[in-house]
Amino acid sequence: MDDIATSLAQVQQAQAQLASAVEALTLRIGHLPSTETPEAVTETTTQENNDAKEAASPPVTGMSTPAPAAGGKSGFTSRIVLTTYPKQIGINPFPMDWGNPDPVKRGPVVVSRYPTTIRRRNAIGAHGGSYSVYYALALASKELTQDHRPDFTNTEPAVNHGPLPQWGDKKKIVSMDPWGHVAAQEFKKVMDAEDVDIRPTIAVTKAHMKLAELEDSVRQGRLVPDGKICVNQLGELAVTKFAVEPVWYLPGVAERFGIDEGLLRRSLFEHTGGSYPELITRGDIKVFLPPIGGLTVYCFGDPAKMPDESVRLSLRVHDECNGSDVFGSDICTCRPYLIFGIEEAVKEAQNGGCGVVIYFRKEGRALGEVTKYLVYNARKRGEDRASDYFKRTENVAGVKDMRFQALMPDILHWLGIKKIDRMLSMSKIPIHERVELPESWIPADSRVEIDAKITAGYFTTGKRMTEEELAAVQGRVWEDIDH
Amino acid sequence: MDDIATSLAQVQQAQAQLASAVEALTLRIGHLPSTETPEAVTETTTQENNDAKEAASPPVTGMSTPAPAAGGKSGFTSRIVLTTYPKQIGINPFPMDWGNPDPVKRGPVVVSRYPTTIRRRNAIGAHGGSYSVYYALALASKELTQDHRPDFTNTEPAVNHGPLPQWGDKKKIVSMDPWGHVAAQEFKKVMDAEDVDIRPTIAVTKAHMKLAELEDSVRQGRLVPDGKICVNQLGELAVTKFAVEPVWYLPGVAERFGIDEGLLRRSLFEHTGGSYPELITRGDIKVFLPPIGGLTVYCFGDPAKMPDESVRLSLRVHDECNGSDVFGSDICTCRPYLIFGIEEAVKEAQNGGCGVVIYFRKEGRALGEVTKYLVYNARKRGEDRASDYFKRTENVAGVKDMRFQALMPDILHWLGIKKIDRMLSMSKIPIHERVELPESWIPADSRVEIDAKITAGYFTTGKRMTEEELAAVQGRVWEDIDH
Repeated sequence: MDDIATSLAQVQQAQAQLASAVEALTLRIGHLPSTETPEAVTETTTQENNDAKEAASPPVTGMSTPAPAAGGKSGFTSRIVLTTYPKQIGINPFPMDWGNPDPVKRGPVVVSRYPTTIRRRNAIGAHGGSYSVYYALALASKELTQDHRPDFTNTEPAVNHGPLPQWGDKKKIVSMDPWGHVAAQEFKKVMDAEDVDIRPTIAVTKAHMKLAELEDSVRQGRLVPDGKICVNQLGELAVTKFAVEPVWYLPGVAERFGIDEGLLRRSLFEHTGGSYPELITRGDIKVFLPPIGGLTVYCFGDPAKMPDESVRLSLRVHDECNGSDVFGSDICTCRPYLIFGIEEAVKEAQNGGCGVVIYFRKEGRALGEVTKYLVYNARKRGEDRASDYFKRTENVAGVKDMRFQALMPDILHWLGIKKIDRMLSMSKIPIHERVELPESWIPADSRVEIDAKITAGYFTTGKRMTEEELAAVQGRVWEDIDH
Repeated sequence: MDDIATSLAQVQQAQAQLASAVEALTLRIGHLPSTETPEAVTETTTQENNDAKEAASPPVTGMSTPAPAAGGKSGFTSRIVLTTYPKQIGINPFPMDWGNPDPVKRGPVVVSRYPTTIRRRNAIGAHGGSYSVYYALALASKELTQDHRPDFTNTEPAVNHGPLPQWGDKKKIVSMDPWGHVAAQEFKKVMDAEDVDIRPTIAVTKAHMKLAELEDSVRQGRLVPDGKICVNQLGELAVTKFAVEPVWYLPGVAERFGIDEGLLRRSLFEHTGGSYPELITRGDIKVFLPPIGGLTVYCFGDPAKMPDESVRLSLRVHDECNGSDVFGSDICTCRPYLIFGIEEAVKEAQNGGCGVVIYFRKEGRALGEVTKYLVYNARKRGEDRASDYFKRTENVAGVKDMRFQALMPDILHWLGIKKIDRMLSMSKIPIHERVELPESWIPADSRVEIDAKITAGYFTTGKRMTEEELAAVQGRVWEDIDH
């Protein structure tokens, strides 16, 4: 009888121990966020936050290269954080209320990994678009130390612009930070008080430019120097320039494309080869600085006139084509269109209006130059007929265009442009007056491109060709150079 | 007595349940790999590989957006793989022997996420550099389906180039794929046999270009049309172009910078904001396609002459400066130097030699345009003296230059250039003859830049200024436009 009681007591004690063991394990598993969360990562992040200023020791990695080297002198913390999660200890993102008209209430875009800032990040990615890769090389090769902080003395915009009401409209601006040009000034208080690293994503400067084509326009009397906008007989121009880095408010970008934010995040993560896992794990962070080129605005005349609806405005929206823009390739009309857009912008400004040219870094319809050249080869080896122009691109790229003008209007809203009096363009943006490139400006070999575009519905005041006529428009072959 | 028996039975039953619970938990914890490995990820990857063709079901994510939407119609598998690990089930990378002179033994660069290819990837990143982000947008918005495969008919290089011995030297070429232009042809067998998606990272085409400045050269008699290279009185040029996307062999890149591969990988991962965790977890993969711009080669004359040491060769290596290259900003000498380089290249070709211009996508010394404009403002608001030229950049960027010419020679090796007879450049590359921009080509406001560079040790045949003289070289302020 006693034996039974004793063993029963022992059994109950063992059971209690088991129960607590189960509780401990369950608790540990329970710590895993609701997603497919790497527990270890959660732990190490916490770890990193504690270790932040601790001397680096070898990281634990699956790499074949000796781990100590990657730690040791590297200045990195001992653990590698593959991604972060919303509710981790030490993770404390700056509040961000995209679209709030008050910049302080909107909050700064914080993406820097500066030691005192890394926990406060409220954006995924890095400053500088693609150039963050060079920044990483500079740090790796010790050209730059991670504790460098920019000195923004005298860097503020060369002209005042805004604020404008639409900067407070979370639907109108989703692909750039409307406060990006004054970040260093608007958020100085918080930068000083909390020692956070906040950087501008927009810069505004003034310059003079000289284009051989416009010198020629002056010589031919098309352009008349006024000493202010077209400065002199050399056709030299005074211009205000705005450089803008991409800053994406993901819910807004998804809405523009008519897709779900989760799908956008997943596609950006997976189809770039698995970059920025925080796109997946940090649903609480809504801002992303993608590693792509941005845009540059060239404003002729007084920039203050851009938002003034009582003043005429001419506009050229131009997507990068390095082969033509820089090297004058005659297979397309890109540089001629750009120069025409600049000349018309200058004339508009000289007439008391405002002329704007916006240059987007979207080489080869955002397909890149390698794809573009592959298409050129397929065209030239084929019969290069206008009727096959877009088909050749689709054969190689799967689409004829990846520029996605859905995000283009943001810069117009930011500049305050509410109406366009003269649009120097072929593309399909709803506009008051639209102006084509004059026939005489069209290079020999580029008829294939331009006629294909017109027939595809691009803007023209001229006639659209029939399929038969289009098939008759043929580019020259490589060998045919005398024309 | 019965009570005891009953409770004993109950205790034993509870104990059995507890034991199995503990076993289950222990088993799960036990699955964690030895490194800081996210268990879920390991599991889910395996899962994905099995599920590859399974209909998509809602992914489990921490996102605020409804998970089903991100799955459902998205075509994604049910689990999200945050990163992969070398020995996972289903992971079977193509063998890659970088530097092997036989392309087939070297192996193709496989980075596509095409369903039948994703398990065979032997490179991190994605095709197209930055443009992979637009590719992701195209897929997200259903403009493109993930099962699209390029049709490479007629896209092969417009001229034959190589193979050259140095293509088989793993030390000489580490930042591009020497077989990138013939990938679709060299690896056609394996593409067909194993249904893998392999794409070119280099494209070679021929073109005609027309530059207003060179039309002027012809008018002035500096350039004489020969009907072949300089085609006609309009100064039209015949050119062969090579577009090259970056493909980094990480051990080689690390060696160029004199750093450890692990440190390079960690810095690329962390300082880009945590992109490409496979840089950390896939030590077995040595190739990385970074999301940056590449380069373009413009060859005047017969490209076959480039590797021929008995033929004279002139070269201009040019780093992108959009404000000058496209818009003719007069604050720097970029476009004048580029045009000068092209004109000299054409003359060399006309004299039976070969002329090459290489254009690198490294805007603003790879600092990007926003940083560049911030520096311009600081210069103009300061006294903009040549003596402070580099200091202003360092104030803002921390370094005066991030271009890292350490990777520049790769393209010269790939082209077969063993010696340079005329180098049109200021930069510090060891060269036979080096030719400066003629005084008359230097824009008004750019003396600050050029004198600062000369004094900093950039190439000149002229005298280097003293600090005092340098301080006297001053740019004009924004308002000073008449000159």
